[in-house]
Amino acid sequence: MSQKLKKVCIIGSGNWGSAIAKIVGKNVLRLSHFENRVTMYVYEEIINGKKLTEIINETHENVKYLPGHKLPENVVAVPDVVDAAREADILIFVVPHQFIRTLCSTLLGKIKPTAIGLSLIKGFDHAEGGGIELISHIISKYLKIQCAVLMGANLAGEVADEKFCETTIGCRDSRLAPLLRDIIQTDYFRVVVVDDEDAVEICGALKNIVACGAGFVDGLGLGDNTKAAVIRLGLMEMIKFVDVFYPGSKLATFFESCGVADLITTCYGGRNRKVSEAFVRSKKSIKQLEDEMLNGQKLQGPITAEEVNYMLKTKRMEDNFPLFTAIHRICTGDVKAEELISCIKNHPEHMDVKTDLQVQSKL
Amino acid sequence: MSQKLKKVCIIGSGNWGSAIAKIVGKNVLRLSHFENRVTMYVYEEIINGKKLTEIINETHENVKYLPGHKLPENVVAVPDVVDAAREADILIFVVPHQFIRTLCSTLLGKIKPTAIGLSLIKGFDHAEGGGIELISHIISKYLKIQCAVLMGANLAGEVADEKFCETTIGCRDSRLAPLLRDIIQTDYFRVVVVDDEDAVEICGALKNIVACGAGFVDGLGLGDNTKAAVIRLGLMEMIKFVDVFYPGSKLATFFESCGVADLITTCYGGRNRKVSEAFVRSKKSIKQLEDEMLNGQKLQGPITAEEVNYMLKTKRMEDNFPLFTAIHRICTGDVKAEELISCIKNHPEHMDVKTDLQVQSKL
Repeated sequence: MSQKLKKVCIIGSGNWGSAIAKIVGKNVLRLSHFENRVTMYVYEEIINGKKLTEIINETHENVKYLPGHKLPENVVAVPDVVDAAREADILIFVVPHQFIRTLCSTLLGKIKPTAIGLSLIKGFDHAEGGGIELISHIISKYLKIQCAVLMGANLAGEVADEKFCETTIGCRDSRLAPLLRDIIQTDYFRVVVVDDEDAVEICGALKNIVACGAGFVDGLGLGDNTKAAVIRLGLMEMIKFVDVFYPGSKLATFFESCGVADLITTCYGGRNRKVSEAFVRSKKSIKQLEDEMLNGQKLQGPITAEEVNYMLKTKRMEDNFPLFTAIHRICTGDVKAEELISCIKNHPEHMDVKTDLQVQSKL
Repeated sequence: MSQKLKKVCIIGSGNWGSAIAKIVGKNVLRLSHFENRVTMYVYEEIINGKKLTEIINETHENVKYLPGHKLPENVVAVPDVVDAAREADILIFVVPHQFIRTLCSTLLGKIKPTAIGLSLIKGFDHAEGGGIELISHIISKYLKIQCAVLMGANLAGEVADEKFCETTIGCRDSRLAPLLRDIIQTDYFRVVVVDDEDAVEICGALKNIVACGAGFVDGLGLGDNTKAAVIRLGLMEMIKFVDVFYPGSKLATFFESCGVADLITTCYGGRNRKVSEAFVRSKKSIKQLEDEMLNGQKLQGPITAEEVNYMLKTKRMEDNFPLFTAIHRICTGDVKAEELISCIKNHPEHMDVKTDLQVQSKL
């Protein structure tokens, strides 16, 4: 019997990983078809002379990344990723995206061939030769497993506080969708599953570019109407980007939590907005502000804008995405932030009377 | 020759009417197929012993409703609405919605039978026997003319300041669309025309209900994730409401300025949000807060929520619109604001795995 129970492993234990561990740990206990023990891969660190995995397994609290929240006791911290993942049927990936390739090579051949992945990792990876590669595609390709994604307006601290919110799972395989929803959904963390995997994942990265635009508008003091217009044009470019580079998605997906909801939250809160506002007001470089405001961590929006710009250039499509292009050039210093609006005044969105045909073609 | 030039009349001269008069007045001067003189119906008032129409025609400033902005000299204030409208080919309606029926009876038979209307009026009117009636439908029906609509994230003061923004014109007749766009579009006020007239107009009213929900979330201190979820669920109910009561609209319309952009602005700024936040924190009634915060003016969201609730009740669909229903009941005092989240926890949006079919049916 116990052979048939599904085992879950969470790969990663930052604040988002720990918040999800809290949810998954509780869910498996009330679901009859899951093994109670959930492994959580924790990158070993020494905290006040003691191993972080030991602290978590004794106190059931990730004192470094999610202090103040108890993890369910059935979540077990494991310092070796292969040990953690070896027997798992569901692998939840929630590590910083720059570690994903190394992680995959470590796991290759060591996991169940029937395992399925669920990536919570936001942001793209560089493709060889330039442009972007989706994290879930990297996982699929390297580990030869299916990989769904989960994205949404989900600030980790608020999820850990059990405040009501929504999330989106993108899962192409409709047989797996109910399984993934079961381990994630609670009465405060509401899941919508759509089959548009790529669009869901891309939203989670592109929103950070738009948030830089929203921050520039705030820095320039342009007001509410302009900010709403920039956010909306950003959303239209997100939709068009998916349509051009990952065709076949549905317009409805952008209305999910991964789309419009996450975009709003990121453009009103969020550090991309904040640093971009400071960029305009202070006249310092993004690099300087990263050092001052983010302890030297890199801001995601400008990096993503650069990767996207590479792809647009290759396809000679920079003019079709004037907002993404302007934001990239402002981040690099090639264009002044004050020029933002003149760059988008003749946006393709404003060029034509939309007829049935044009509107439909975007669906 | 001058016989063939199109004449424009603006019916209304509040702050939004005056901001639009500034745009239209300038546009007709640069367009060869419009008469230069634009009439603006101004409800006569005495300001410091002088008639408002005289002040406007002498100083070219609406000192009462849009002080600090010069109107173009070709915009002429007229105190009699029939005089203002009699020869017009395009009638722009921008009066408070409670005056629309009286206005129409005054104009009936006095305007050109070939005239076309453009309504900028937000909010519904009561239908006889309960429920709602769209303002553009009232204009069409009473005056026997076509009537398009204009809605968007357009705070009047910022438009008058010529800050960049977008707007949406809903116009069913594709032959008229370029004409309407020409008199409205400038390089800072960007127009997208869609043929989904009803959806555009309905967005302008329903967003105020959602803004009350966003205000409750703020008052309850529930955080960014929850606010994003409530706004998104509100958007989904807006889409569903149009689908049920005004079928045939396109999902794409809700991505226009009239949809997502206006909704965002209203849910982050705007008085419906603000009064609703105070409602939760102060425990006073909406009526008391209207007296204290709005000089006794009525808040639009609760009125619209009541009208919408009447329609949902009639169709026994209250449970299909749990957010609209909860907001209405909170406004009336039948449900506590603290119950908001428990009312939407089992939202129909979260009930099923969305398959292709379900998603497509919403397009």
